[in-house]
Amino acid sequence: MTDLLLATRNPGKLVELRRMLDSAQIAGIRVLGLADLPPFPEEPETGATFAENALAKARDAAKATGLASVADDSGLAVDALGGMPGVLSARWSGRHGDDRANLELVLGQLADVPDERRGAAFVCAAALVVPGGEDIVVHGEWTGRLIREPRGTNGFGYDPIFVSDGEDRTSAELAPEEKDALSHRGRAMRALLPHLQALTGR
Amino acid sequence: MTDLLLATRNPGKLVELRRMLDSAQIAGIRVLGLADLPPFPEEPETGATFAENALAKARDAAKATGLASVADDSGLAVDALGGMPGVLSARWSGRHGDDRANLELVLGQLADVPDERRGAAFVCAAALVVPGGEDIVVHGEWTGRLIREPRGTNGFGYDPIFVSDGEDRTSAELAPEEKDALSHRGRAMRALLPHLQALTGR
Repeated sequence: MTDLLLATRNPGKLVELRRMLDSAQIAGIRVLGLADLPPFPEEPETGATFAENALAKARDAAKATGLASVADDSGLAVDALGGMPGVLSARWSGRHGDDRANLELVLGQLADVPDERRGAAFVCAAALVVPGGEDIVVHGEWTGRLIREPRGTNGFGYDPIFVSDGEDRTSAELAPEEKDALSHRGRAMRALLPHLQALTGR
Repeated sequence: MTDLLLATRNPGKLVELRRMLDSAQIAGIRVLGLADLPPFPEEPETGATFAENALAKARDAAKATGLASVADDSGLAVDALGGMPGVLSARWSGRHGDDRANLELVLGQLADVPDERRGAAFVCAAALVVPGGEDIVVHGEWTGRLIREPRGTNGFGYDPIFVSDGEDRTSAELAPEEKDALSHRGRAMRALLPHLQALTGR
């Protein structure tokens, strides 16, 4: 049995990553969360890109634990905000992890932005760091648009204001398995699966 | 005597534009503000670029008053925010015109951004619309960096956190004539001067 550490402290991300790995049913892998291990030092997320942050988190975790470690960094890239909040998505309002304040701020900033300029994409970089092995970074993107009032209670972050291309429901109104099939994180994790499967063959 | 209308309701901008035109001493031009005229309908600023907004404001004013009209749209483009707040500078916090809230939000968003990635530029587009004449749009840019605590009481907007290249003082610590010599708005207005001088020869 190979241990794989999901190196995230974001409860919403942890739920989704676990769910995706469970549904992928990779034989011979046991998934651990940070809560299953003693604490270790982590650097603050100050990278300029999702990939840089994901890799730094996975490296910190792999170094401290000796385990193969997966980390993700992800966020919302809003066209009318020049691609931001981007890597600052979790602290856009200046208050780290305050989903509601971050979402309300984006809505306020876009109050006068007309419907045809409300395009946005969720973007995810997922990194796998295997001690003594290669570092791998993959990307996933989910394109859509932002509405004017939050709707739905699933998911987290900006889900209540994001409507996927081809959908009328927000991503907080999608069932978990529907979200995973479309989402940036789902796409990135599927791109990572072959590398995770390869772990068990070591 | 040719009348020239400064089509701005931002008191900080009006002070600066008047000061620059006064110091340029263009013979034969009388400068009016919006407060000198009866009110007229103005479209909200929803353009995607400074130039689009400046031109729309100058056109609204020229159409309503029949006067040659100058308008500016300007803002702060922060490298680590993908060039934002940009056209949303005056309402970045979601509260239009709340300089302090907007500035504090940028500082909060940049709290973890290291010094070497705190570059920023003030950008200005200035438009001159002359009824029956050509529309002219010029640009000015002022490059520098953002500090972590506001300093100084001159100017307005993001001046207390912006330090020009080659300076140690914030733009809110510069004397008015020092700011005009360096600023985005000063550069744009100087680019507009030949066109303003040409007005008096009509």
